[in-house]
Amino acid sequence: MKIHGRHYRSIWWDREAEGARLINQLALPFAFETLLIRSPDDAAQAIRSMAVRGAPLISMAAAYGLALGLRQDASDAALEQTAAMLLATRPTAVNLRHVLETALQHLRPLAPAQRPAAALDLAAELADEDVALCRAIGEHGLPLIEAAWAAKGQQGRVNILTHCNAGWLATVDWGTALAPIYAAHDRGIPVHVWVDETRPRNQGALLTALELGWHGVPHTVVADNAGGHLMQQGQVDLCLVGADRVTRRGDTANKIGTYLKALAAFDNGIGFHVALPTPTLDLRMDDGLREIPIEERSADELLWVTGQDAAQQTHTVRIVAPGSPAANPAFDVTPARLIRSFITEHGIVAPAQLAQLPRRG
Amino acid sequence: MKIHGRHYRSIWWDREAEGARLINQLALPFAFETLLIRSPDDAAQAIRSMAVRGAPLISMAAAYGLALGLRQDASDAALEQTAAMLLATRPTAVNLRHVLETALQHLRPLAPAQRPAAALDLAAELADEDVALCRAIGEHGLPLIEAAWAAKGQQGRVNILTHCNAGWLATVDWGTALAPIYAAHDRGIPVHVWVDETRPRNQGALLTALELGWHGVPHTVVADNAGGHLMQQGQVDLCLVGADRVTRRGDTANKIGTYLKALAAFDNGIGFHVALPTPTLDLRMDDGLREIPIEERSADELLWVTGQDAAQQTHTVRIVAPGSPAANPAFDVTPARLIRSFITEHGIVAPAQLAQLPRRG
Repeated sequence: MKIHGRHYRSIWWDREAEGARLINQLALPFAFETLLIRSPDDAAQAIRSMAVRGAPLISMAAAYGLALGLRQDASDAALEQTAAMLLATRPTAVNLRHVLETALQHLRPLAPAQRPAAALDLAAELADEDVALCRAIGEHGLPLIEAAWAAKGQQGRVNILTHCNAGWLATVDWGTALAPIYAAHDRGIPVHVWVDETRPRNQGALLTALELGWHGVPHTVVADNAGGHLMQQGQVDLCLVGADRVTRRGDTANKIGTYLKALAAFDNGIGFHVALPTPTLDLRMDDGLREIPIEERSADELLWVTGQDAAQQTHTVRIVAPGSPAANPAFDVTPARLIRSFITEHGIVAPAQLAQLPRRG
Repeated sequence: MKIHGRHYRSIWWDREAEGARLINQLALPFAFETLLIRSPDDAAQAIRSMAVRGAPLISMAAAYGLALGLRQDASDAALEQTAAMLLATRPTAVNLRHVLETALQHLRPLAPAQRPAAALDLAAELADEDVALCRAIGEHGLPLIEAAWAAKGQQGRVNILTHCNAGWLATVDWGTALAPIYAAHDRGIPVHVWVDETRPRNQGALLTALELGWHGVPHTVVADNAGGHLMQQGQVDLCLVGADRVTRRGDTANKIGTYLKALAAFDNGIGFHVALPTPTLDLRMDDGLREIPIEERSADELLWVTGQDAAQQTHTVRIVAPGSPAANPAFDVTPARLIRSFITEHGIVAPAQLAQLPRRG
């Protein structure tokens, strides 16, 4: 996607620096900085700190991290250890495991000397594949927005609510939930996006708002609390969110708070749609509430917030009563019964059809 | 309630200064300051800025504001104009109108010379009445917590989720939703409160956490997004919230986001209870979604946040991508079908019984 007229991906191989370069999402939206990953530890640190986040993008950072590790040591033991270390960085998103398993299957049969180049080629190939998946999700999701526009008699605007950031900053390009929105906007459909702030890390207010603004898509940031009211008042035509892991039956782990919006959409007869590249599907699990591991992150993410004052100075301030503790579960699980459809790279499917989708590998 | 061992109400008459004194809630939790109201304009300004907030407390500030205005001009015209000006400060909470109508009915028949003293006496009487209402809500709500404790075989702790601040800082003393919690805690039941942060003004993280901490009640602040997940995981035994306006059928306007928690409680079979002093009941309305006016507040409340850095310096920082707009509806309406009971000063009632409650005036 474009930033001030220049095309970017969120991660790319920097030949000169011999490393993977990423947009540092911890500096956004107030500064645009890139981050160079030159080792598996660099990749793990970027993932854990959330300098890189979003289920698809995390897996790409890990693929490059693995390739960089093999340049130092391409033995069987190093291959397995590095993959295990990268896998342990974050527990909820399944793309990470999918990509690392794909890489291991590809690299294990090769002689150690062949592995570094093969791993790097594979990372580039997986990145290109992610772009293609997201573009396909955009095309397949577009009819949902066209239908909402037609249902309104092409009057006003199509109001879409989204949670967290499932845009191009969360993938390599295009995004998942935002891909159909970009596709609709680019075709001249007047879309407007309600952007959930997405506490406690504010990925909606900071990243989704930023990338929609860069691309010129009309949007309004709202508190996570506001979505139910907007739906009751007829201000939401459909909901589009991403996913970190989807089970065989369609139970969907996504950013904490997604479940609440799905409940409100269901209560108001509004379509709740999950954009789902198939690497996010985990067919080994069925009951998401019981089986998907939910990451508990640091309370500091809730207790403190970083922003810029009116003089554009950056400060980190406490916003919770001194002495009070906080808890910070990072994801929740939306039961399949609340989800109207999944938008995949193969087309739109109902939860019951997920297990029949064609899958790579 | 007590702060560091000293008893406070949230508003009281300061004889020496000849004004009403309030705890300035904009300074909390980082500083404890009081604010003196010496005119109706002072009262209106305190209400609009949210130095004083909470449906019951707002109405008390208005009652004192009206009394102070009559000291300057006790004519019929001034009485009506001052009451109208105070009524217009905030649209959603009905207690404000209830108190002002009570005052007008009481004061209109009096000679202007009698009005200033009568208005001040009435304000003091209404404040005492509010304390009595809240204490009664605490006693009537206590059995809900005792029942939850018994249902757990008196093992572990009773986990109660609350939204916004419906504690003593929102009333004159005790609070509404927090009154049963204080009553249970004081009787030795091990309660633990999940405190919703309550974006965008963070009344949960700043005020509810503060007053629970002052009183020694165990609590944990969570993002507004987290409540659904906690309920799915069996971590919530009951929900207790306050209200800004409740209609005849039981539709309940309360802080934005309340509806989402009610949906999650209903979906998980958890009791969702509204603490309701009868001045918050508006029998003239039935369909809350269509009839209750919802205040739209400044986008700045979402775009900027104030807190203290590690060196205890206060900063106000922007936490939304530069250039992105925000919307800020302040309340939502929870349909009566999602509410298990109302805890009133007369006892616990189902939504269908609200219209039969005895009411003052």
